[in-house]
Amino acid sequence: MNQAMDGAASSAAPRPPRVQTRQAAEHVGERVTMAGWLHRLRRLGGISFLLLRDGSGLFQAVIEGDRQLAVLQDAQPETVIEVEGTVVTETQAPGGLELHDCQVRVITPVTETLPFEINKKVLKPGLDVFLDHAPVGLRHPQKQATFRLFSGLLAAFREHLTGEGFTEIQTPKLVGMATEGGANVFPVSYFGQTAYLAQSPQLYKQIMVGVFERVFEVGPVFRAEPHSTTRHINQYTSLDVEMGFIRDHRDVMELLTGVVCHIFAALGERCAQDLESLGVSLPTVGQTIPRVKFREAQQIIHDQFGEDCRSEDDLSPQHERWLCQWAREAFGSELLFVTHYPTGKRPFYTMPDPDDPDHTHSFDLLFRGTEIVTGGQRVHLYAQLMSHLERWNLDPEGFVGYLEAFRYGMPPHGGFGMGAERLLQMIVGAANLRETTLFPRDMKRLSP
Amino acid sequence: MNQAMDGAASSAAPRPPRVQTRQAAEHVGERVTMAGWLHRLRRLGGISFLLLRDGSGLFQAVIEGDRQLAVLQDAQPETVIEVEGTVVTETQAPGGLELHDCQVRVITPVTETLPFEINKKVLKPGLDVFLDHAPVGLRHPQKQATFRLFSGLLAAFREHLTGEGFTEIQTPKLVGMATEGGANVFPVSYFGQTAYLAQSPQLYKQIMVGVFERVFEVGPVFRAEPHSTTRHINQYTSLDVEMGFIRDHRDVMELLTGVVCHIFAALGERCAQDLESLGVSLPTVGQTIPRVKFREAQQIIHDQFGEDCRSEDDLSPQHERWLCQWAREAFGSELLFVTHYPTGKRPFYTMPDPDDPDHTHSFDLLFRGTEIVTGGQRVHLYAQLMSHLERWNLDPEGFVGYLEAFRYGMPPHGGFGMGAERLLQMIVGAANLRETTLFPRDMKRLSP
Repeated sequence: MNQAMDGAASSAAPRPPRVQTRQAAEHVGERVTMAGWLHRLRRLGGISFLLLRDGSGLFQAVIEGDRQLAVLQDAQPETVIEVEGTVVTETQAPGGLELHDCQVRVITPVTETLPFEINKKVLKPGLDVFLDHAPVGLRHPQKQATFRLFSGLLAAFREHLTGEGFTEIQTPKLVGMATEGGANVFPVSYFGQTAYLAQSPQLYKQIMVGVFERVFEVGPVFRAEPHSTTRHINQYTSLDVEMGFIRDHRDVMELLTGVVCHIFAALGERCAQDLESLGVSLPTVGQTIPRVKFREAQQIIHDQFGEDCRSEDDLSPQHERWLCQWAREAFGSELLFVTHYPTGKRPFYTMPDPDDPDHTHSFDLLFRGTEIVTGGQRVHLYAQLMSHLERWNLDPEGFVGYLEAFRYGMPPHGGFGMGAERLLQMIVGAANLRETTLFPRDMKRLSP
Repeated sequence: MNQAMDGAASSAAPRPPRVQTRQAAEHVGERVTMAGWLHRLRRLGGISFLLLRDGSGLFQAVIEGDRQLAVLQDAQPETVIEVEGTVVTETQAPGGLELHDCQVRVITPVTETLPFEINKKVLKPGLDVFLDHAPVGLRHPQKQATFRLFSGLLAAFREHLTGEGFTEIQTPKLVGMATEGGANVFPVSYFGQTAYLAQSPQLYKQIMVGVFERVFEVGPVFRAEPHSTTRHINQYTSLDVEMGFIRDHRDVMELLTGVVCHIFAALGERCAQDLESLGVSLPTVGQTIPRVKFREAQQIIHDQFGEDCRSEDDLSPQHERWLCQWAREAFGSELLFVTHYPTGKRPFYTMPDPDDPDHTHSFDLLFRGTEIVTGGQRVHLYAQLMSHLERWNLDPEGFVGYLEAFRYGMPPHGGFGMGAERLLQMIVGAANLRETTLFPRDMKRLSP
């Protein structure tokens, strides 16, 4: 596609075709047009070094001559410019390339001063100030790198599952009932009725096991939880998987291990530069991730870290951090499966362990101190599901469509859900989930 | 992964590994286990033909012997079963393969009669009855085929854009203001405030052009339009694209042509069997899709079809059908671009044609009688955008984050949005958009 600009604002001479930073190495010795944002301009007498930022990186142009410098006289950072020049190799320049004999043209002038500098190696403002100005703050190269990883993560997730015979689905986000019967749903005014925003595609992905056996969905989920922590937000991107004809939760864990391995491998291969610029190292994952049962995990916390949580029926964030520390020391693993959570703390659709019905065929996957995945085997027999609804005090009337799938034959199945932004948070080591969410939503933030 | 089932319900003998229908051809002569749903059972004396349906298709098993038949005595359709047998070639069988010397086991019994038959070639019930029972109705092979195409369509869309250097984004669906300043938004009760469900990722994808130049998003959008037509629903999957450093809308149209061509090519290559089973033929698209300006289109309608709509400022569904008929007859094309819609009928961010400011650098793509894509060039200069907000009677206070991106340099850019379900509707020739939407939402339908 011809992306050179012409029309009213352009000069008469025809310009060479546009090249992006990522393509420049293929054009050494050629005249090219580059375009992007004026990231930084360093004047040294009659010569200036202009750092141009485009969608794929930073590129240095050497500007000489009064006429060219005059073009940039009042140009503030972020001015949109076009630079025609010759690509030359220059070991001192970022990326080993430079643009010489340049002609500069301003495409979109910028006259205002930025809310904070985005052309320094590290972003200075606090999180709230950054988020208030995310529309420009996200242009910082480290933020570009972070969200390119996000894009790569989603692609790798889908790629692995497609290779394993999964079919992608898109399910309703407006539902007539609270997905898992709980509170913490956002009500929506829907043509005179009340609808709710889906907390997860759980019930739909299970229904779809009856159609395709193996399904996945990537999409937003909504949690009206009034919490204010560094690892929760009220809308996130859920990576959801469900598969039929499993032995039990262990088959789901094996699939998940493959998914996680592929995500790390794909990011390592395709986003090496972004990982390096963020100073991030990816974990190495063996064929199997260490596994510990919930009760054993509590015993380990008791024995190794001196806190007795053995009578509790869930793990706290501190417990998860300790367990990850233990897994690193005992197995050299940054990932750890905790299995067999207590039945009472899991949703109604969770399959109890037939040998120990107070615990379930469920798991969490912990990574670098935090739970990143929840999953397990589901109840697949209609009668058992009905008795679970009763025990969980849920009205079957709210589950008519879901139950219909079970009246007409569901195989043993299970799956998991993984928050994409939280996985990214753990990969890049961000202190707050809001740093790895493009435009986060929380109790205090509905914009930008 | 070992998917043979064991545990309490299994018999003692070890079973051969499970094979899905799509993999069976690689196992001719071998003992395998197949599993799925009892699609149909035809008894002919002491021998029965069992049609097994799994996530990837239908497979015939020949059942002999009283003991095996007894297992299936009371089995209703949709009973979940496992069949161990030997794969043999048999030209009479569907797919040219059959399972012989079978041992059948019931995994999940079904005792109830289905709400309607799903093992006949064509689904009989009317749309409303079908949708009420979608959790089982979607198991019909033609429905499987339809939604496998949906999955393939999404993958092909992303694949093409990733190849063109686009970055995937996920943006908020809960917003503090109506995206395009209009009515028709669903209000959400959000921690004591009112939020709205995003009608489109328009403003966010434009902001992200400032970060990545080229972005795409696949996700749900919500329209509170109180209409009841065969081509509208209230939640759909929007395929959104935005790209920077364009000449004008024509660059966006060239990109879109590539996207659409790739979707058709990918479906033709990877989903040939599904297309065939639905009796669907894909359009052939040339290098360029015919283009006609809005005013010319009205003239064509006047001259060729005898209706004078030349003073109107939009096209009706009937006009779109006539234009598609004209494009087919005049150019042999099932696709047609209509460009330069009147400024007043397009959103505030649409770029007016500098040579004719009453019309815009916008386009719709029509396909088989219906608009499937809307797009165009956007206003990229801050001052022009502010004057547009004023002309459109929109309060800049509602657009603070969006406007910030424009205060700090935006390049000429444009993009488009395409409804995935509607594109699929036109591909398969469904009369109603609800037939190509997994669990549609409309004024009367919030479940299943």
